[in-house]
Amino acid sequence: MSNLKFSFLYDYSEGAHDKILEALSTTNLVQQNGYGEDEYCDQARLLIKKAIDNDQVDVHFVSGGTQANYIVISSALKPYESVISASTGHIHVHETGAVEAKGHKINVIDSTDGKITPEQIDKVLIFHTDEHMVRPKMVYISNSTEIGTVYTKTELKKLHLFCQEKGLYLFMDGARLGSALMSPESDLQITDLPELTDVFYIGGTKNGALIGEAIVLCNDALKDRFRYYIKQNGALLAKGRLLGIQFKTLFSNNLYFDNAKHANQMAFKIAEAVKSLGYDFLGKPSSNQIFPILPNSVIDKLNKLYQFYTWSKVDDNRSSVRIVTSWATPESAVDSFIADLSSIKGQESI
Amino acid sequence: MSNLKFSFLYDYSEGAHDKILEALSTTNLVQQNGYGEDEYCDQARLLIKKAIDNDQVDVHFVSGGTQANYIVISSALKPYESVISASTGHIHVHETGAVEAKGHKINVIDSTDGKITPEQIDKVLIFHTDEHMVRPKMVYISNSTEIGTVYTKTELKKLHLFCQEKGLYLFMDGARLGSALMSPESDLQITDLPELTDVFYIGGTKNGALIGEAIVLCNDALKDRFRYYIKQNGALLAKGRLLGIQFKTLFSNNLYFDNAKHANQMAFKIAEAVKSLGYDFLGKPSSNQIFPILPNSVIDKLNKLYQFYTWSKVDDNRSSVRIVTSWATPESAVDSFIADLSSIKGQESI
Amino acid sequence: MSNLKFSFLYDYSEGAHDKILEALSTTNLVQQNGYGEDEYCDQARLLIKKAIDNDQVDVHFVSGGTQANYIVISSALKPYESVISASTGHIHVHETGAVEAKGHKINVIDSTDGKITPEQIDKVLIFHTDEHMVRPKMVYISNSTEIGTVYTKTELKKLHLFCQEKGLYLFMDGARLGSALMSPESDLQITDLPELTDVFYIGGTKNGALIGEAIVLCNDALKDRFRYYIKQNGALLAKGRLLGIQFKTLFSNNLYFDNAKHANQMAFKIAEAVKSLGYDFLGKPSSNQIFPILPNSVIDKLNKLYQFYTWSKVDDNRSSVRIVTSWATPESAVDSFIADLSSIKGQESI
Amino acid sequence: MSNLKFSFLYDYSEGAHDKILEALSTTNLVQQNGYGEDEYCDQARLLIKKAIDNDQVDVHFVSGGTQANYIVISSALKPYESVISASTGHIHVHETGAVEAKGHKINVIDSTDGKITPEQIDKVLIFHTDEHMVRPKMVYISNSTEIGTVYTKTELKKLHLFCQEKGLYLFMDGARLGSALMSPESDLQITDLPELTDVFYIGGTKNGALIGEAIVLCNDALKDRFRYYIKQNGALLAKGRLLGIQFKTLFSNNLYFDNAKHANQMAFKIAEAVKSLGYDFLGKPSSNQIFPILPNSVIDKLNKLYQFYTWSKVDDNRSSVRIVTSWATPESAVDSFIADLSSIKGQESI
Repeated sequence: MSNLKFSFLYDYSEGAHDKILEALSTTNLVQQNGYGEDEYCDQARLLIKKAIDNDQVDVHFVSGGTQANYIVISSALKPYESVISASTGHIHVHETGAVEAKGHKINVIDSTDGKITPEQIDKVLIFHTDEHMVRPKMVYISNSTEIGTVYTKTELKKLHLFCQEKGLYLFMDGARLGSALMSPESDLQITDLPELTDVFYIGGTKNGALIGEAIVLCNDALKDRFRYYIKQNGALLAKGRLLGIQFKTLFSNNLYFDNAKHANQMAFKIAEAVKSLGYDFLGKPSSNQIFPILPNSVIDKLNKLYQFYTWSKVDDNRSSVRIVTSWATPESAVDSFIADLSSIKGQESI
Repeated sequence: MSNLKFSFLYDYSEGAHDKILEALSTTNLVQQNGYGEDEYCDQARLLIKKAIDNDQVDVHFVSGGTQANYIVISSALKPYESVISASTGHIHVHETGAVEAKGHKINVIDSTDGKITPEQIDKVLIFHTDEHMVRPKMVYISNSTEIGTVYTKTELKKLHLFCQEKGLYLFMDGARLGSALMSPESDLQITDLPELTDVFYIGGTKNGALIGEAIVLCNDALKDRFRYYIKQNGALLAKGRLLGIQFKTLFSNNLYFDNAKHANQMAFKIAEAVKSLGYDFLGKPSSNQIFPILPNSVIDKLNKLYQFYTWSKVDDNRSSVRIVTSWATPESAVDSFIADLSSIKGQESI
Repeated sequence: MSNLKFSFLYDYSEGAHDKILEALSTTNLVQQNGYGEDEYCDQARLLIKKAIDNDQVDVHFVSGGTQANYIVISSALKPYESVISASTGHIHVHETGAVEAKGHKINVIDSTDGKITPEQIDKVLIFHTDEHMVRPKMVYISNSTEIGTVYTKTELKKLHLFCQEKGLYLFMDGARLGSALMSPESDLQITDLPELTDVFYIGGTKNGALIGEAIVLCNDALKDRFRYYIKQNGALLAKGRLLGIQFKTLFSNNLYFDNAKHANQMAFKIAEAVKSLGYDFLGKPSSNQIFPILPNSVIDKLNKLYQFYTWSKVDDNRSSVRIVTSWATPESAVDSFIADLSSIKGQESI
Repeated sequence: MSNLKFSFLYDYSEGAHDKILEALSTTNLVQQNGYGEDEYCDQARLLIKKAIDNDQVDVHFVSGGTQANYIVISSALKPYESVISASTGHIHVHETGAVEAKGHKINVIDSTDGKITPEQIDKVLIFHTDEHMVRPKMVYISNSTEIGTVYTKTELKKLHLFCQEKGLYLFMDGARLGSALMSPESDLQITDLPELTDVFYIGGTKNGALIGEAIVLCNDALKDRFRYYIKQNGALLAKGRLLGIQFKTLFSNNLYFDNAKHANQMAFKIAEAVKSLGYDFLGKPSSNQIFPILPNSVIDKLNKLYQFYTWSKVDDNRSSVRIVTSWATPESAVDSFIADLSSIKGQESI
């Protein structure tokens, strides 16, 4: 960071929401059972079940997204079964081969918007005919996706229906689930998820927690002895209370959704300004990750003031950048960024 | 816990030391890089290198002991290599086959005191002669051990010398390293460890942190691309700062050692009282886990007031119990326990 | 071998029974489907089902014992499940950690006679209580065992009943099944096996085939998509006919059992002679592996004439040796061995 | 097969070359050491070293291609390393995820001709920047490829040079190496391979053997304790002689190359006829797999007489078929096929 004004690099640049730190302090010396069998985990599980309006699911807490992804996938699949993912999928690109390290192939579908469709999945299924090939058994989607897009309820319904017909599990990576659910581009509700997925997780790390993802197992076939998988992979925290306290706090007083709404609003405020300055986007801004397309000269100047990723080359003069906001992004930083972008653009025009 | 007076079940019943919570608060909104590349992790690494008086080591932070164990072991071994452990070793018994899940056999040495010797290891080596068997390549020891004993500097020196002669890596599980180093039964110093092991870790979870173990790679052969292993196994926290801040705090103002010393003192105060009441122990009390041998009738009554594990049957009338103290054990709880034990014994005698 | 008279090292020193070579020649240019879907494999499967008097089983052919063992075990177990084995078990000692390489722990039972009992297994079950430990799910036994002993029908019935009560799969490694079934020490019939095991295999390599073990899946729970496991582990031969032709031949005209009977008779002839010379055995000679206890001076002299393993030290003057016979051991070699042993003993006595 | 005239399905429809069967008979009762330590394996290793004019390599025998592929790859790579393959690569498509089952990701390069170039590999390398992604460390190529094309010496030289510069191992899958080396489309010699690859294997199964691939380790870094990998994966045959005898025979009297030359000649004779009938090909016929493009009506009629795969749809009226010949394809079958194709075409034209 050094002497830059603000970082829009990612949604995990800061610690935790104040209320979480408060709750950690308040409960600190209360003795509890270890390994997720404490009262706070119990309370958090109840609050999540209430929030999704379903008490038949099983809820487990782990530390992070990669852990959640490979544990869910490897617990669901037999050794010869594979998981289908978009080419942009976090499991395919950014998890150091964690899924393959557990023995499973990822069947990759080329995707430009980060999402996948039943038609694309069907092609994969048709190709895999016998025991000389892996057997696709799970579909992995991210919501919001790695490039900021979101699934609508209709899209998810179609996907789930197709998966049910084909005997595939549908798994939603919800590392940024809050932002997806608060997106104006989607009518999907958290209460829809137990019906429309076999398993999903509720990301805490990128929405106000220090660490933590809440895995929600909806399909009974996936529930059996899940704690064995968590423990075997080193994901069962001795002080599971750390996860319980955080999710209890996030699912009290609507904090989880308020955090995500704030992140989205900050992103959209920037997006509006970008648009009004005449710049375009890589994909429609839909969640807390937006991808403005800017002249390279503008990017160079912005980079001296703010931290963010330059995402992809668009043409010889322009590139897309990734701007990420979060529960912790102050509106002042957003306003400052807009003012600086506007000013840089003004200089460019001269 | 319900209405019991106190739990001596384990050393992770509470949250974190106050100074850690304070540090989390103070730093909370300072933006940092993710994945352990933040300033706090950097500072913690420097403090640890200073504490062990060696700046050639590599220091990495992970969440817990099982994670630390299987990542260290699987990163060091080739697919056909195995690790030697005491039969009491945490990796053999209490990690749901995590080491085997990464593909490696554990060669088990029967141990009554939790420790292993060069002579025992040599028998394993002599037995494994060719490619029809695994090839032992690492020795795993715990200090303090799972049953509260500690290695002396002389014992560790012999072990390390033997391992060097035989081309074996020596790995010390330090989940309870603080308590071991503060034990009056051992002259071992933390500054000895880089010389006498190839890799060890400094346990935070059981000595005042919410989560966290600091892996110290001493042997150059083990350092290469270690972060790939951490990431692939889902152990690279997005908010690595959580680990950095904690270890920075623990290694400031001697907190790590003070915490451990307190835990030991609380255990020894109980041990003295137990001894003065005429009861014996399973092994000599050496660290924050002690194993008094009590009449079953006494145990039954104590159990109505305090939480602890009944460990093993000693004879028809007596069993050993495990009493664990920690940085968070108040002296008042210890005094209360001693008074109640004394009182129960008095009733028994009547 | 060089200039020694004969090797009693193992039962795979020679090629294949003449009838197998004949069948390979006769069928050589008949075009067939690959991957075990040829007519010979079909016929062999039918002959085996007839021999075991059960047409509900699934029969698959693989190349060798280690392959059969780890494929059966890893296809049956979930990632957190373990297999119980005698300490003498081939999977524990002589397969370079193949089972662990597939991710599974072996729970070892100390055994002096190579066999295990329900009481021993029960202790393992009682110890493994929760998700911090692996979950034993399969029992692995060898028949004949690695030290030549055999299970009686009564022993196997008890073991199977216990496994059923406890929800454990019972897996019999039959690398030397022929010799076990032809043993005068056991009343077990091959037709008993589908009732008394969940899966077993019929060893070909050590009973007259060039390569090949026939895995017989009895329990429906183990049958699903087994060919995927065979293929994924590189065990599905393109020219599966090689396995089919061999097992078709072995299970025609009683060849499998005649081969084994011959092997046993050769071993027992040696055993009788050893006994009549006044020497003892490590365990009662029961199959084609016998373990005479001989003076070290006698062993030294025998070793100049015959190849065999010196097995274990018995006392300062005596060791046990392993003598293995096979379908290919000519009676003349046995007679020569007996004569030489007798003559050496005679020299010793002088 | 039933009542069809001949099968051009694959090059493993028959047993073994007569000389191999002869050698198996001749040597059958000679006692040998097990596990590839017999005299025939030793002799075969010497003959192969002579044929490739290099005695610094290590030669190991395994049963089949999938086994060879995953053992070579998993022995060479660290857990976080990946292998680069063409999209047509056998390891990517037709091995039931065997490479992933050993924990490694395959980085896939889209290929239309079955081959890959340094430029394509470089894009993969540039993309994989840090520990959040796998680290590509090996390039896997097949020669001949899965679609019948072959690498020229110039192509292989460029590839090898590039791999050396980038620190990548170059691994050639030689399941059909004989046919590739005998191709008129390539000037590559078997003596070039130790210089131009780090490891390759010489396929026996598809060139006259019952089973068997000879893995040739050229790069010293790949040689260490390779037998441990073979054994751990169940690929070390007790009767290793079966592999030794076959490769000894194949590399005596030029049999390996004569077999391949015959296979190619049979394919080219068909290719000439196809061309003269005015049909085109999918790729230029280069080895023992050719892919004529035929009218669907012609394919239907041919299918009633011969077995072969219909490979891919070319347009609404035409498809490509795969015709595979082998050492065992009699010229009479080829002539018959040509005559029938010609006759069917004649009928079509009417």
